[in-house]
Amino acid sequence: MTLTPAKKITVGVLGATGSVGQKFVQLLADHPWFEIASLAASGRSAGMPYQEAVAWLGPSAMPEGMARMNVQACEPDLPCRLVFSALDAGVAGEVEQKFARAGYIVVSNARNHRLDPDVPLLVPEVNSDHLAMVEHQRFGGGMIITNPNCSTIGLVIALKPLADAFGIRGVSVVTLQALSGAGYPGVPSLDILDNVIPFIRDEEEKMQAEPLKILGDYSNGSVTNADLRVSAQCNRVGVADGHLECISVKLANGASRQDLRDAWQHFRGEPQRLKLPMAPLKPIYYLEGESFPQPRLHRNLDKGMAVSIGRLRECTVFDYKFVAVSHNTVRGAAGGAILCAELLVQKGYTD
Amino acid sequence: MTLTPAKKITVGVLGATGSVGQKFVQLLADHPWFEIASLAASGRSAGMPYQEAVAWLGPSAMPEGMARMNVQACEPDLPCRLVFSALDAGVAGEVEQKFARAGYIVVSNARNHRLDPDVPLLVPEVNSDHLAMVEHQRFGGGMIITNPNCSTIGLVIALKPLADAFGIRGVSVVTLQALSGAGYPGVPSLDILDNVIPFIRDEEEKMQAEPLKILGDYSNGSVTNADLRVSAQCNRVGVADGHLECISVKLANGASRQDLRDAWQHFRGEPQRLKLPMAPLKPIYYLEGESFPQPRLHRNLDKGMAVSIGRLRECTVFDYKFVAVSHNTVRGAAGGAILCAELLVQKGYTD
Amino acid sequence: MTLTPAKKITVGVLGATGSVGQKFVQLLADHPWFEIASLAASGRSAGMPYQEAVAWLGPSAMPEGMARMNVQACEPDLPCRLVFSALDAGVAGEVEQKFARAGYIVVSNARNHRLDPDVPLLVPEVNSDHLAMVEHQRFGGGMIITNPNCSTIGLVIALKPLADAFGIRGVSVVTLQALSGAGYPGVPSLDILDNVIPFIRDEEEKMQAEPLKILGDYSNGSVTNADLRVSAQCNRVGVADGHLECISVKLANGASRQDLRDAWQHFRGEPQRLKLPMAPLKPIYYLEGESFPQPRLHRNLDKGMAVSIGRLRECTVFDYKFVAVSHNTVRGAAGGAILCAELLVQKGYTD
Amino acid sequence: MTLTPAKKITVGVLGATGSVGQKFVQLLADHPWFEIASLAASGRSAGMPYQEAVAWLGPSAMPEGMARMNVQACEPDLPCRLVFSALDAGVAGEVEQKFARAGYIVVSNARNHRLDPDVPLLVPEVNSDHLAMVEHQRFGGGMIITNPNCSTIGLVIALKPLADAFGIRGVSVVTLQALSGAGYPGVPSLDILDNVIPFIRDEEEKMQAEPLKILGDYSNGSVTNADLRVSAQCNRVGVADGHLECISVKLANGASRQDLRDAWQHFRGEPQRLKLPMAPLKPIYYLEGESFPQPRLHRNLDKGMAVSIGRLRECTVFDYKFVAVSHNTVRGAAGGAILCAELLVQKGYTD
Repeated sequence: MTLTPAKKITVGVLGATGSVGQKFVQLLADHPWFEIASLAASGRSAGMPYQEAVAWLGPSAMPEGMARMNVQACEPDLPCRLVFSALDAGVAGEVEQKFARAGYIVVSNARNHRLDPDVPLLVPEVNSDHLAMVEHQRFGGGMIITNPNCSTIGLVIALKPLADAFGIRGVSVVTLQALSGAGYPGVPSLDILDNVIPFIRDEEEKMQAEPLKILGDYSNGSVTNADLRVSAQCNRVGVADGHLECISVKLANGASRQDLRDAWQHFRGEPQRLKLPMAPLKPIYYLEGESFPQPRLHRNLDKGMAVSIGRLRECTVFDYKFVAVSHNTVRGAAGGAILCAELLVQKGYTD
Repeated sequence: MTLTPAKKITVGVLGATGSVGQKFVQLLADHPWFEIASLAASGRSAGMPYQEAVAWLGPSAMPEGMARMNVQACEPDLPCRLVFSALDAGVAGEVEQKFARAGYIVVSNARNHRLDPDVPLLVPEVNSDHLAMVEHQRFGGGMIITNPNCSTIGLVIALKPLADAFGIRGVSVVTLQALSGAGYPGVPSLDILDNVIPFIRDEEEKMQAEPLKILGDYSNGSVTNADLRVSAQCNRVGVADGHLECISVKLANGASRQDLRDAWQHFRGEPQRLKLPMAPLKPIYYLEGESFPQPRLHRNLDKGMAVSIGRLRECTVFDYKFVAVSHNTVRGAAGGAILCAELLVQKGYTD
Repeated sequence: MTLTPAKKITVGVLGATGSVGQKFVQLLADHPWFEIASLAASGRSAGMPYQEAVAWLGPSAMPEGMARMNVQACEPDLPCRLVFSALDAGVAGEVEQKFARAGYIVVSNARNHRLDPDVPLLVPEVNSDHLAMVEHQRFGGGMIITNPNCSTIGLVIALKPLADAFGIRGVSVVTLQALSGAGYPGVPSLDILDNVIPFIRDEEEKMQAEPLKILGDYSNGSVTNADLRVSAQCNRVGVADGHLECISVKLANGASRQDLRDAWQHFRGEPQRLKLPMAPLKPIYYLEGESFPQPRLHRNLDKGMAVSIGRLRECTVFDYKFVAVSHNTVRGAAGGAILCAELLVQKGYTD
Repeated sequence: MTLTPAKKITVGVLGATGSVGQKFVQLLADHPWFEIASLAASGRSAGMPYQEAVAWLGPSAMPEGMARMNVQACEPDLPCRLVFSALDAGVAGEVEQKFARAGYIVVSNARNHRLDPDVPLLVPEVNSDHLAMVEHQRFGGGMIITNPNCSTIGLVIALKPLADAFGIRGVSVVTLQALSGAGYPGVPSLDILDNVIPFIRDEEEKMQAEPLKILGDYSNGSVTNADLRVSAQCNRVGVADGHLECISVKLANGASRQDLRDAWQHFRGEPQRLKLPMAPLKPIYYLEGESFPQPRLHRNLDKGMAVSIGRLRECTVFDYKFVAVSHNTVRGAAGGAILCAELLVQKGYTD
């Protein structure tokens, strides 16, 4: 059962002015457990009211309570113990360590510490047991928990039920990724109008490495990578939100199309069992429409936290191929990180 | 050497009012060998001046000589021996046979006869020897030659040098295909704005079947399919022209990255040797830019007849992966068909 | 005060499968007063379950209760007295009259009867007194009430407070209109990608005529058109929803910028006084951002029922110019019609 | 008659790496009179080969001769007498003056000196007589000639024949402007996807001021502004190239629709009489299509140097309204400036 905290837990957002930072602000505005106590950002913005420091991307209006809150510097003197990090990779590594060493619990969307051997790379539906790694961390009272790359999350959620039921040997994935994944200002309009760009810096490397850790086995404080090869090709397309992935899988054991669909449909994770506030009712929706899933139609399914899957068909080269869509800034960034924090709370780490 | 015809060869265009038909009209307007004598279309348009019968898609203006030409019915009484077919698959099968039986040479962009055992499925750079199949056709004095699907052409041109040099065992391809491939009016704007659609009817089936015939061996009047498996996933994206394909290949023999690039860079086909008017100087351009090729930047390379390739890298699951772009209505439709016709002329079939 | 109906009023939707019809279905799904009893459409769809008859445009999922409801023919034997018409102009004229003569109350979004002298052309915030015209209608027990064209509604709401306070002599308006205004399939993607189209059939005529009636004076059963000239230029742009209008006005009396802003900010209409369920809290929001309003950011303001105004500045040719945005399928179509129906209920016409 | 220069005139491009600078490089690559001797840019790029210093925007490939040319600093020691300035307004003012004082002829696309009383603001078809102003300039042997803002050029070309034939009292113009007008990286894709932006900084001010000078009378070394009021509202839309303008005019004298069309159709300017290389055959094309002109279809008309006009109709508020399209980076920037330079050559100012 879910233990609702007796009173709201104050939290901070590091990098609150960027596009992911703004998504944290939106999603935390009405959160039943958390309350934003601090909006922090890099030096230039510090001291300004949030509404002046930020180029608000919408689509909904800025939460009223935030507009006049003064932006603070990213220094570990914020009036809260839990901080969400939406910092750029260029600064996240050091700043997050500084906060962790000062006793803060850092739930980070940045790439810097994801592959550190003592840092959990967490998708709560997939590897909630990895959270125990924080007990072996080097940061004294503080800790760092990371969220995977936006394109990794949709993939590993789609793969997890298959890995459990049939085993996975190989994965080939080609992505069609949304513009918001590049932050703001991000992709110039002249580059993407009437065009697609078959390159996203460092993205293929992340998608090929992170799933191995997330799907790996945890024991005795460390993770053994899954024995699995992933090949990724990443493209940027003119879609605002929602990554679409064309996935081919080679399974270890035979399975029918119905077996795969059943595995996805019945899949539930720890967030569903614990009824965490940010958790979708179901992590995966299998859609029957012959041209589904599509980013614009399905990215917001179940609060933007579900992965939509469709078009499962046999593959002449691998065993099966299918299409998955997930919301890159909700499930794939801020929403996913908040779900991690909710798991932390429920598991007693914030007490 | 190239034998320039002593005088221009009169040709007709069947289905001249559709989007591919218009592209034929554009590309034939200033052709050194061919001269349009007939524009034919389905019953509704017949009898109208072309400029009234057509919703001209541009971008350049309608060739002056065509505007006032009267559209004729698709009946085999056109004043020419060579006809290009841009007919819809719904009617192309029968109409093309009727023309062939009446002694016409039909160069078709329609799918209907592509896999017929006595019909060449021709990409002149790749399998010009297959053209000899027409000598065994069932149509008396006439003949049918077909052009592959727009997404197949880019793929087989990219694969041919690799198949010759290293052998290919398996191919996995994911496409990001342009809107013009769906004809006109085609894809509604509300379906594709801020969206991609992971489904194109019958497209994956065509991409998986056609390359086997094109890359197959011809002898004694028939083609033995290539021993090769192709798996295709096809997506529609908001790009006007130019299909992008993310291709992974499993080779039969070991090869370095430089070997593959050399194979592409040195590749020339019969159209290049014969200096056919529509032939690109090189069938393939390997581009070094880290985010190349891109549809908007490279679709028009070498008259829209070249395939641009880039981003060759090793694959953790297959051997190699890379990206290819080709112009779907030029190289992949009208331009490719005209190149086939030029080969026919040069080989003496129109004498 | 608002009189909430004792029990839900059953309603029907004519033309329920089109894009505006779908918007009615979405907006009525959770309506506190109304309950859909019938979905009706043209012959082809009649008899099919709604989910099979409709190409659902989203973005949210089809309301569950509707999916399996059978579509009925547009005949006046529906189990309800109030029907919303989202019919095409090609059939709306006759069908709506047939329903009205059979005793139905028809709230129509179609153009056919808008300028009939005994039919109210209603924007509840602007001319709720015109509703009394129905008492002089020719339809026996039934009646027809119409909603203006989608581009007219935003304009007249913006003009009304100015007309009341300062008088308006002339209006020049240039629109940038959304794709959904053309219905579905509507505008082909190849026509609008990397393009705008400076023509929408019959649109300028509607925008120039309808405001004169809406802003006219009602007495003794008829409306005297406002003494005002409107000139409209209409453009289609690649935006999904939300019409933007660049408006210049010549006022009868002098007024400062602040006077205009005050007039807009303080404007309230009958729906606000009656607290109708579909009514926005405020009909008009004046936005301070130097580049506001924008369709994507502001179309959904206050349930999509408010008009956003910004960029008020003096004009060197007229007196003032400004920009307005309103949601064309909510405020400008289905939502506006539902608001009319709510006014009807509250005024006792459905008893 | 045209006097072709005996040998090519060497020229330089200041600000050669920006988007307008690149367009200069493209258009000068095969110019019959000019030859690029210097590519200059701000400090950061100086010393680098052009192909490394520039993010080439295409769509055609970088001219071969330019790729390896070293970028120079913007200092007046370039081996040429004529320089084109594509500098940003932030630096253009001082740099251009420095070059002029050092004896260079500067043809500038920057806004800084456009309204200086001794600097011609030149559209060669419209006010070629203004060029004589350079004889009264303050720069010793050098001179500065300016090109108007991209949105002004299309407007004044459309107005000039009307002003000459009928007189113009007032103009109201609403623009739908292309992305390339904002330079590169310019407008972020997240701002313009599924959106339009009704604000372009300083644009309305330029459009309201520049036409008065261009259409003004020149005598005795100075220009008297035209007695005319222009009101402009400027919008950014998701179009790559080509500004569309909705224009309403109040004429001084009565004229029929046919009178206006005749005035446009017969309009020729000094560049046409002199057959300057960059001059379009006709400055204005009146198009009959009911939805013409459109940016994608007509921006490239007559080398991108013509203005397309259509949809002339009577206006209920002004006298007439119509739509114009012109290519903002060709006619409206680099191409227009090159045409100015050709006029300079032909008038003997470069001897």
